[in-house]
Amino acid sequence: MALVTLKQIAEKLGISITTVSKALKEYPDVSKKTRKLVRETASMLNYKPNSFAVNLRTKESKIIGLIIPVIVHHFFSSVIKGIVAQAEKKGYLVIILQSNESYELEKKQIDLLLSKRVDGILISLANETADFKHLNQVISQETPLVMFDKIAKIVKCSKVIIDDRKAAYKATQHLIDIGCKRIAHFRGPLLPQNSIDRFLGYKKALIDNNLEYDPSLVYICECGEMSFEEGKKNASQLLKDHKDIDGIFINTDLVAIGAMTELIKQGVKIPEDISVVGFSNWFMASIISPSLTTINQPGLEMGKNSFKLLYKEIKERKKKKTINYKELVLETELVIRDSTKN
Amino acid sequence: MALVTLKQIAEKLGISITTVSKALKEYPDVSKKTRKLVRETASMLNYKPNSFAVNLRTKESKIIGLIIPVIVHHFFSSVIKGIVAQAEKKGYLVIILQSNESYELEKKQIDLLLSKRVDGILISLANETADFKHLNQVISQETPLVMFDKIAKIVKCSKVIIDDRKAAYKATQHLIDIGCKRIAHFRGPLLPQNSIDRFLGYKKALIDNNLEYDPSLVYICECGEMSFEEGKKNASQLLKDHKDIDGIFINTDLVAIGAMTELIKQGVKIPEDISVVGFSNWFMASIISPSLTTINQPGLEMGKNSFKLLYKEIKERKKKKTINYKELVLETELVIRDSTKN
Repeated sequence: MALVTLKQIAEKLGISITTVSKALKEYPDVSKKTRKLVRETASMLNYKPNSFAVNLRTKESKIIGLIIPVIVHHFFSSVIKGIVAQAEKKGYLVIILQSNESYELEKKQIDLLLSKRVDGILISLANETADFKHLNQVISQETPLVMFDKIAKIVKCSKVIIDDRKAAYKATQHLIDIGCKRIAHFRGPLLPQNSIDRFLGYKKALIDNNLEYDPSLVYICECGEMSFEEGKKNASQLLKDHKDIDGIFINTDLVAIGAMTELIKQGVKIPEDISVVGFSNWFMASIISPSLTTINQPGLEMGKNSFKLLYKEIKERKKKKTINYKELVLETELVIRDSTKN
Repeated sequence: MALVTLKQIAEKLGISITTVSKALKEYPDVSKKTRKLVRETASMLNYKPNSFAVNLRTKESKIIGLIIPVIVHHFFSSVIKGIVAQAEKKGYLVIILQSNESYELEKKQIDLLLSKRVDGILISLANETADFKHLNQVISQETPLVMFDKIAKIVKCSKVIIDDRKAAYKATQHLIDIGCKRIAHFRGPLLPQNSIDRFLGYKKALIDNNLEYDPSLVYICECGEMSFEEGKKNASQLLKDHKDIDGIFINTDLVAIGAMTELIKQGVKIPEDISVVGFSNWFMASIISPSLTTINQPGLEMGKNSFKLLYKEIKERKKKKTINYKELVLETELVIRDSTKN
């Protein structure tokens, strides 16, 4: 049996399609009795209203698009979970696309979502993305847009972020407080705003504490994608370059775990010889040994709040209200574990 | 600027909307010159065809639905990645819903996707799901359906699975080969087919090797959701109940890592005292210490193949061909690491 149509309901009841259609929309010019009968028949036949027809009328798809750099990643999958849960509460479905950290792909995906007439777009930028025409196009077409985590400061839309600079400062200050004097930083890829801000937070903490800022202690990830292997590579390079390191602040936990694995392999004691602080508080951070001191990054909260801001804009545009873009900064906290001396 | 319409293109060129529409569809009764002009103007104005209008004509949404028990899970996020990547290649978008292992939610989500007229549905069942009316409804409405990983054998549709029984047999046989005599099993929740099959594979391996099958060595996860904590709980219970255990086969790596953490905490040497084998080959299995011997479960491949089967059915239905359901069984392999004696 294929999908049930209004026609079939009408035939079954011996009334006109218009009456069926009106009855399902609870038009008062159809008698209560008929409306009840139509509703019952429709549900008996398991009738489903045609969303696309509905879309043409209301100009709403009740579908939003989400573009995310990587899916297989604890932080981002937590964000996805938060977005999907919140969207479902409001009756929205979420289309998920992965940009693979590629600017070209990201651009294509924006076009695709716009052509699908989604009600709004949520995006966390690819590491490669340095040009924002595609985002301004979304805005100029009056499609609600919210950026989260990896954002472009100059794009005028609502944003949900953490204060990466402040968090990185906190992480580095902790290393200084426990006595570290030569602190390296694995900053990850060059472009993304959060890499830049974490680096700046690290640098400021050093300067504020009258410690020398030595650029040769900052390791950049060329590959563009932060990985466990990247952490191992950087750590073994660091041990070759500098013998006097006593602390490392690492851009993300996965890389930090890779780095610790390499350090331990090479006989370095953590935290006795080198203290390590990561970023994100991926749950593995508490499980590995030594457990990893890190910055807690609230992925689920970021997802929920990103959808809430998008939903707010969708409603405001529907009511033709003026849109007030909001930048929401979520709190982060330092979680102290065994990878840093107490 | 709001979305560009055919009308605007027509006005700009001083031709009729019909001509513009025909030109964009490359109708031969419009001159090559005009078609080229319209195409150029459309792309200059950044015109996007209205998908919903398109949908009404072609009855295709080019959107598929995916229902998955949990998103924040290495295996499932790998599957999602595989599906999204493959779908994009064929110009399909993927709506992702999380059932949270809840049968009620899963049912609601199926209805929602059907009402959205998606072109097909991919699903991995919630642990709770024991009734399959909602799936048979999808089939009776001739909406392409493919199940993967957590499937219902009695539902007639294409499926992508691994041979859980064979894989569990392999895992248990390995424990026996390295000399384990009293092997426990953390089987996870009762209902899902893959838990049942892994349990049966474990049991068969014992019997084939003339080892006693002792039901008291099988630990079930009541909570419904397999977790790190669950592994710790089961492990400490196991140490209370049985002093003579020398091997454990655990339903999934996350639980196995939880169990190992508890065993080590209680002074058990792995693998000297107890050998542990997990299931799924989550990449953390190679990172923790001792590294975890496990069964490699190809999540990315499962995702790609699930979409391929769905796509095949979508095409076959469009051509009104008879549908031949396919059950694809992906290969698994035992990955031997430090958690089992060599």
